Amino acid sequence: MPDNRSQYDGARVLADLHALRGIGAYKTGAHKPTFSQAHMRSLEWLVQRLSEAGLTGAIDGIGNVIGTSAKSGPKLLAGSHLESQNYAGWLDGPLGVIYALEAARVINPDLSTDGAVEVAAWCDEEGHFGSFLGSRSYVGGIAESDIDAARDRSSGRAMREALRGVGLEGRPRVMAERGRHIGYLEAHIEQGRTLESGGLKIGIVTSIVGIWQYRINFSGEQNHAGTTRMEDRKDAGLALARFCVAIDDRFPKFSGPRTVWTTGRITLDPGAPSIIPGHAEMLFQIRDDDPAVIDRLEKLLRSMAAEVSARGRCSVAVERLRTGAPAIMDAKFQQTIEDASLAFAGGRSIRMPSGAGHDAQILATIMPAGMLFVPSIGGISHHWSENTDDADIITGAQVFVETCRRLLTG
Amino acid sequence: MPDNRSQYDGARVLADLHALRGIGAYKTGAHKPTFSQAHMRSLEWLVQRLSEAGLTGAIDGIGNVIGTSAKSGPKLLAGSHLESQNYAGWLDGPLGVIYALEAARVINPDLSTDGAVEVAAWCDEEGHFGSFLGSRSYVGGIAESDIDAARDRSSGRAMREALRGVGLEGRPRVMAERGRHIGYLEAHIEQGRTLESGGLKIGIVTSIVGIWQYRINFSGEQNHAGTTRMEDRKDAGLALARFCVAIDDRFPKFSGPRTVWTTGRITLDPGAPSIIPGHAEMLFQIRDDDPAVIDRLEKLLRSMAAEVSARGRCSVAVERLRTGAPAIMDAKFQQTIEDASLAFAGGRSIRMPSGAGHDAQILATIMPAGMLFVPSIGGISHHWSENTDDADIITGAQVFVETCRRLLTG
Repeated sequence: MPDNRSQYDGARVLADLHALRGIGAYKTGAHKPTFSQAHMRSLEWLVQRLSEAGLTGAIDGIGNVIGTSAKSGPKLLAGSHLESQNYAGWLDGPLGVIYALEAARVINPDLSTDGAVEVAAWCDEEGHFGSFLGSRSYVGGIAESDIDAARDRSSGRAMREALRGVGLEGRPRVMAERGRHIGYLEAHIEQGRTLESGGLKIGIVTSIVGIWQYRINFSGEQNHAGTTRMEDRKDAGLALARFCVAIDDRFPKFSGPRTVWTTGRITLDPGAPSIIPGHAEMLFQIRDDDPAVIDRLEKLLRSMAAEVSARGRCSVAVERLRTGAPAIMDAKFQQTIEDASLAFAGGRSIRMPSGAGHDAQILATIMPAGMLFVPSIGGISHHWSENTDDADIITGAQVFVETCRRLLTG
Repeated sequence: MPDNRSQYDGARVLADLHALRGIGAYKTGAHKPTFSQAHMRSLEWLVQRLSEAGLTGAIDGIGNVIGTSAKSGPKLLAGSHLESQNYAGWLDGPLGVIYALEAARVINPDLSTDGAVEVAAWCDEEGHFGSFLGSRSYVGGIAESDIDAARDRSSGRAMREALRGVGLEGRPRVMAERGRHIGYLEAHIEQGRTLESGGLKIGIVTSIVGIWQYRINFSGEQNHAGTTRMEDRKDAGLALARFCVAIDDRFPKFSGPRTVWTTGRITLDPGAPSIIPGHAEMLFQIRDDDPAVIDRLEKLLRSMAAEVSARGRCSVAVERLRTGAPAIMDAKFQQTIEDASLAFAGGRSIRMPSGAGHDAQILATIMPAGMLFVPSIGGISHHWSENTDDADIITGAQVFVETCRRLLTG
């Protein structure tokens, strides 16, 4: 057992998480869209806590908070995000920030441990204005023109206007200092049921899966729903429905053990009750951490489309919108999390890919990165009822702090 | 052969149809939404033609034009509509109005025929503002509050404002004078391929099919498209797709020879590419002229929904939005059209239901009604390329005029 275990304070972790839940509370969750008052107050609250922990940090020009340490020795960057999806859960984001804060509080004052934990809260991980704008800004991945173009998905409000509204206009954006960090560690709720259903406490993320996204278009013949006989129809909507069912029937034989695929949106054109749809469109995505699996499934998808077109009633066009290479988590980080789990979670851990995207995939482009998951009750996330047992939160924090210590000293 | 055949003028019918096509022309079709300038100019054009034909008519307070005759004897009401769907065909509506005008021109001055044809152009048959508002107004089927509530489907503009804009505000609405007419006759393009594919010239409408409309709701569980494994999903969108396919597979065994069914709109909720839809909805309609067939299909639909719900992954609720009893066309009118077809179309006619709705179904609620169809090239309608051979237009007009004469004298 490590010597400094006594310094770790699980009650303090819970108290901090409850303090953040109290800012912008919604039912048992929180409503903190990016740059909302509740989000900004959460960032200010964090800046205060960083200062109390001996770190120097402020909100930068894109809404990131980076708390740096003057302590000598290696630095480990750790964190997550504080904004939430609309009317969503209290742990998605804050958990990882408070774990990082606790690690800094425990490790940085400990002069027997060389080096320090530095704490980050990345802005807009939840994508109200874009895709990982905060962490991408830090790694140098966005231009000013990207910020000019960004708009709130819900309200359409320009990001520039939002930045001005919260007083961040003109502040510099903090960029990563190359070589400063030995890596990045992030904790998050699992958002799935793998840990819960296996009675496990820690998920050791092996990779963050890539997302391949497609627009699939069906063309038939728009016609009158009363006067066009069934045998004369070229119903693009029906062709789409048959295609969805065919995917569900045929994908399992070609997919990997954790592949997921989703049709999230369907549009029939013109979408009137008395008109046979002449066009139909579906947004389809596949996620896996193995590009070979995706290749296989995309080939299958295209051959299925060709089969439908060959039948002649409707034609199908598959357009790839997005290719997402998986982000591989650092092997040493994975091993260190596993070792810490053995010490503080009775070894009840499992290596698993992350089906969801996280800032760690952005940080992984410039430094070694690792992630650990704690269980989600019922696998629920992006909903106010999202929750994790207090005991699991505490166990997770302990494993996180210990992982940081071992990464700095190992 | 009838004596007055010489008075009928096919060239005049074509010239009038081309004159109307010239008002609001779009490619080879027309764009005349209800109360557009092109629509109003078409109505004024008709009022002029009525006056030249010795009829008295004006545009009334809802945009109907009714041309009445002072001639003694029985009166037959005949007509159709002059507005079009957006960017649609030139014959859908105008054909029936010009046939009625031609019948009045041929029959009314002929003192050897007792009685007269009166001509109607019903406003908004195409449903820009509602459902058959013009003909329903004439039969006493709408209240002022219905007009207050009516709005343009596309622009959202209030019907009251539109009526004000075209100067019809405050004009009285002309109501049917009970007992004035022996019945109502309407001609229309078929909008299907039955006549064309059978080499036929005249469709004798037996009934206008009823439309039964349903909202079918699927409830599953909204979840993260990355972290929720396939076997844990309750995907409402996939349940909907399977349901559409099941309808297509199972309905044919229980339907009649002319039953048609259509899924015109599908909505997944929340409709985001990375979220498994928790809810999904489809608008579904069935058309048939036999309520027993509809009963059978609705029972099947509900039992299919119960089967899906029983499987437990998603629940399905079937809500009937609209029940449309078929409108039966008068037997004597049918027989008279058939007799006239024998005389002027070489007997190349067929009795058939109308899959589309027409003003005749509204008129049929207060007087005997009949309808005849002429062929549609390729079955195309509600599209600018809609067309009918000139020879078929002329044959149809001749059969129409003769039917009017026989109905008045028979």
